[in-house]
Amino acid sequence: MAESSSLEHPGLDKAAGEEFLQEAFQILLEEAVRKGMDATEKVCDWREPQELQELLDLELRSHGEPRQRVLERCRDVIRYSVKTCHPRFFNQLFSGLDHHALVGRMITEALNTSQYTYEIAPVFVLMEEVVLAKLRELVGWSSGDGIFSPGGSISNMYAMNVARYRRFPDSKRKGSWALPRLALFTSQESHYSIQKGAAFLGIGTDNIYLVGVDERGKMIPEELEKEIERAKAEGAVPFFVSATCGTTVLGAFDPLGSIADVCQRHGIWFHVDAAWGGSALLSRKHRHLLTGIERADSVAWNPHKMLMVGLQCSAFLLRDSSGLLQRCHGASATYLFQPDKFYDVSYDTGDKTVQCGRRVDCLKLWLLWKAVGTEGLERRVDRAFAFTRYLAEEVKRREGFQLVLEPEFINLCFWFVPPSLRGKEGSADYWSRLGKVSVGATVLRPAPSKP
Amino acid sequence: MAESSSLEHPGLDKAAGEEFLQEAFQILLEEAVRKGMDATEKVCDWREPQELQELLDLELRSHGEPRQRVLERCRDVIRYSVKTCHPRFFNQLFSGLDHHALVGRMITEALNTSQYTYEIAPVFVLMEEVVLAKLRELVGWSSGDGIFSPGGSISNMYAMNVARYRRFPDSKRKGSWALPRLALFTSQESHYSIQKGAAFLGIGTDNIYLVGVDERGKMIPEELEKEIERAKAEGAVPFFVSATCGTTVLGAFDPLGSIADVCQRHGIWFHVDAAWGGSALLSRKHRHLLTGIERADSVAWNPHKMLMVGLQCSAFLLRDSSGLLQRCHGASATYLFQPDKFYDVSYDTGDKTVQCGRRVDCLKLWLLWKAVGTEGLERRVDRAFAFTRYLAEEVKRREGFQLVLEPEFINLCFWFVPPSLRGKEGSADYWSRLGKVSVGATVLRPAPSKP
Repeated sequence: MAESSSLEHPGLDKAAGEEFLQEAFQILLEEAVRKGMDATEKVCDWREPQELQELLDLELRSHGEPRQRVLERCRDVIRYSVKTCHPRFFNQLFSGLDHHALVGRMITEALNTSQYTYEIAPVFVLMEEVVLAKLRELVGWSSGDGIFSPGGSISNMYAMNVARYRRFPDSKRKGSWALPRLALFTSQESHYSIQKGAAFLGIGTDNIYLVGVDERGKMIPEELEKEIERAKAEGAVPFFVSATCGTTVLGAFDPLGSIADVCQRHGIWFHVDAAWGGSALLSRKHRHLLTGIERADSVAWNPHKMLMVGLQCSAFLLRDSSGLLQRCHGASATYLFQPDKFYDVSYDTGDKTVQCGRRVDCLKLWLLWKAVGTEGLERRVDRAFAFTRYLAEEVKRREGFQLVLEPEFINLCFWFVPPSLRGKEGSADYWSRLGKVSVGATVLRPAPSKP
Repeated sequence: MAESSSLEHPGLDKAAGEEFLQEAFQILLEEAVRKGMDATEKVCDWREPQELQELLDLELRSHGEPRQRVLERCRDVIRYSVKTCHPRFFNQLFSGLDHHALVGRMITEALNTSQYTYEIAPVFVLMEEVVLAKLRELVGWSSGDGIFSPGGSISNMYAMNVARYRRFPDSKRKGSWALPRLALFTSQESHYSIQKGAAFLGIGTDNIYLVGVDERGKMIPEELEKEIERAKAEGAVPFFVSATCGTTVLGAFDPLGSIADVCQRHGIWFHVDAAWGGSALLSRKHRHLLTGIERADSVAWNPHKMLMVGLQCSAFLLRDSSGLLQRCHGASATYLFQPDKFYDVSYDTGDKTVQCGRRVDCLKLWLLWKAVGTEGLERRVDRAFAFTRYLAEEVKRREGFQLVLEPEFINLCFWFVPPSLRGKEGSADYWSRLGKVSVGATVLRPAPSKP
């Protein structure tokens, strides 16, 4: 193609594009939303990898395909995908679909901007700050800082990095190489992102001290104290404690108040990984589970889990309001963050992150919140607790089901004991055989409600 | 609300939800897509932060709002946002809107799954692998590994971390504290994410050796060699070189072949940050700019930039096919990655990342590719080069405009010289006054084309 001709023909058929969008949207609405939420439809048309590979014809070729074929491909993608909005979908910590949040997500995609400066994202820079302030208010802070990150794992890493930087401001320039050996503390039941984060940030997984838990999976503050003393005796510098609100399997909440006392005594950064459990703060009835969170230095909270706003929506919140986050992560790239713009550049908040381009993750949560209000979100959270309570009673009532422990959150752990193993709890291979049959960890989702 | 009543009334009005979706989609189509792409409309209805804050009424309240109010809010969000798909939008490395990619993004949002295991994302686990393989093929590799990450900055961090781990497998467990001082190398014109990454990963920004560039902004291989020798002489261990394909401002391509020679001689990991320039690989006419990329150990390439698939779509590609990525980042969380599932768990690829939940970023690129084919993508890339050439000629022709240098990519840097400064190049304050008037760095976007 000659260069001149390409200049004369920008080549975009906007009318055809819009028609395609219209058709595809109706497919999405019918196949993904309507059927996806219909209990009489399948959660997933399951195929083994080999067969699915053939069905989908994934290969990318030189030539494009006609519109009807592309629309068929949209149908196929939806058909063979798991409908995470289905009433019978019970996998990892997902929640259902909310139409308002979905609209927020579609508008985010259509506008396709990046969250770094006011000039490129005026609405979203302001909106992110309002949403973060609201989440901080629920934590119990009247000021502070924060940022949306690409997920709870990265929010937890942010916490580690800011804690390291506060303790050793030189770490940014000199690296961990120049620091003493750092030690961090979290419970045996904490999320594996603490492991990933310690490895990625150059802290090292060997320097994680796993603190013992009680029979409900909660960190034992006395054990934390012991581990801190042990780390010190071993020559390490304790700098970071991560408590968990809503552990992955049992849904346990660590005792934040007592942990805060220990952190305060030792001058250690107190982080709360409330990625899963944070949303209980919306419930006046259940927020006591997180009592003491207001004493944290930082909090990770993922509205994309329990508040059903969709991946990704993860808030990293800080109590600090001195600009620590900016100082820790900022690089002041001059091509983006010019100090001599024609507006107040304190609104250019993108340098607080370790990213450059950054998705807009606040709109879907903001729009949902506007539509249902804090009360509406609270009802959903309360309903999820009620469902869990209901299921616990059903599990107790039914033959062959055994509750692992009474739920305090919306995780419910139970065993299904097949007829061949019932009444044989004493036999030597009981637990290994039971483990082969089933491990059930079910999470009850907050169903959406009307505004 | 009593718990029992909430069990009886799941509360979701699906019909009203679908109606809302329909109405909101028509607003999106009209306001964000149609008007957004219309050159006679505004790129942005610009307001100062204070005024915008009042106009938007961002505050989150207890009560929800009626549907019509929420729809108005959708209109407002779009109205005051920057239309990055607008033909007159020329900001940082964005590209326009493609209807196919947008459909892929809307379906991604509606399905809302996470990319960690086959059971939860059967279609997307297979699709990601096909798309990554295709990108690797364009790099020149017949095998290898990779993962989509939340952006180029994080892809560059992945490269640093994998390089550190390959050199010092103990780093994962013991941390950088236990390693010698590591040194990494990149050009003075490289992206600031290298700074952010070195800080975040505990390597330290002081341990980045910035290598000099020539008058076109390309790394000078002899200077790289000297810096490596200097680092060694200073007692550091050189472990990582990041060359850039498409620098942020000038659009320069480092000479990959010569840099690869240096890396090979010293046994250093050779990473190519092709976040911006990687898409030139699709053009038979221009891919020579990246000659030598096939010798890299890893590549970061963001299709969300030049291929207009939308934030976020960033591929981290590795030449290694021994499972290095998995070994480096894996944590084998037993609640997700059970080894005794009923399907081939080699398809559970999510443990290669440092994330847990991870967005599906492959569908939009796959769907676009299916729709327009490799040839269609190539035409877009070629057209962007042609537009840049055209603009360069226009800049030369017009009074008061001065080209900074002849473009080799699709960045075009020029000065606008106001009448008061014309012919005064010799005066003492010429450059400082010119700098205050304008710094123009314009990026020409590949316009979408018909399949």
